[in-house]
Amino acid sequence: MQLLDAGAADEWGATFTADGSFAVPTLPEPVHGRDNLVAMMRRTAAELAAAGDQRRHWHGMLDVRPQPDGTVLVRCYALVFSTLEGGEPRLHRTCVCTDVLVREDGELRVRSRSVTRDDLR
Amino acid sequence: MQLLDAGAADEWGATFTADGSFAVPTLPEPVHGRDNLVAMMRRTAAELAAAGDQRRHWHGMLDVRPQPDGTVLVRCYALVFSTLEGGEPRLHRTCVCTDVLVREDGELRVRSRSVTRDDLR
Amino acid sequence: MQLLDAGAADEWGATFTADGSFAVPTLPEPVHGRDNLVAMMRRTAAELAAAGDQRRHWHGMLDVRPQPDGTVLVRCYALVFSTLEGGEPRLHRTCVCTDVLVREDGELRVRSRSVTRDDLR
Repeated sequence: MQLLDAGAADEWGATFTADGSFAVPTLPEPVHGRDNLVAMMRRTAAELAAAGDQRRHWHGMLDVRPQPDGTVLVRCYALVFSTLEGGEPRLHRTCVCTDVLVREDGELRVRSRSVTRDDLR
Repeated sequence: MQLLDAGAADEWGATFTADGSFAVPTLPEPVHGRDNLVAMMRRTAAELAAAGDQRRHWHGMLDVRPQPDGTVLVRCYALVFSTLEGGEPRLHRTCVCTDVLVREDGELRVRSRSVTRDDLR
Repeated sequence: MQLLDAGAADEWGATFTADGSFAVPTLPEPVHGRDNLVAMMRRTAAELAAAGDQRRHWHGMLDVRPQPDGTVLVRCYALVFSTLEGGEPRLHRTCVCTDVLVREDGELRVRSRSVTRDDLR
């Protein structure tokens, strides 16, 4: 999440598997593949930078469940804070994030991430 | 906390001991016993569902102190977020939560939980 | 952070090394030395108490990097919540905190802490 908020697209993309997917409520379809994820993130980071909007993503209250097939299922809460340059910090979103993690080269990577927003039900 | 927010009353109740107690500032007396805890939570969950209010409880900044008698004293901060259907997310409460945990059947369960609210002093 | 919010100045000061430093955006220079840190914190705690302002500092999203020289570099996010007596809780600040930790007497202590605020860029 620090990589995401810093606009470090490639490093953030490397936390997903090459075929990783990311589903968010504002997109009609999940985004598939690290290249597409990185491209999506670059666009978003450029828009936020142009708007002077510093986002901070917090994950917490992790429910971590190793699965028999070696993957790890994580369901956690997510908060997104937003601060415009010179402005007051603001709670932007509260979300739930469900990840399927796999081990690759000794690291846990995201094979699929699915986010729901509490304001969109 | 995920069980609480999901309205999973029995599963949430199982995180307390059978004689567990819960003290909150809005009740004149602590609630004692898992059955009473579950009943209280069901009522609250039904009210929140009727109001279209999705709460999210975050615990953090844990101070964990194992005691000589085998119990574990935990003092942590708590945040409660509230989102009405179609509305903006809102910081609802900041609290402090003090738990006495005991081990039962290989799990840590809450024997007593006491919550204070920063807005009520 | 619980010590800070409780106004426990000496105990909070003991989480720094004797020559520890603390840099915040609202001070022209970092504060150096445990005695000066404790004195600064006492002043702030007295002002907040006089204003009836209960602050809550949350650290999260820790990026922990042990260094070859035995120190530990931590970059984390920080939230500050504020509640006036009888008032609504409020998100006061979102920050980034960078610590250099060292081991002393079997404990990790802060040798330097540097905080940036998202609203001041």
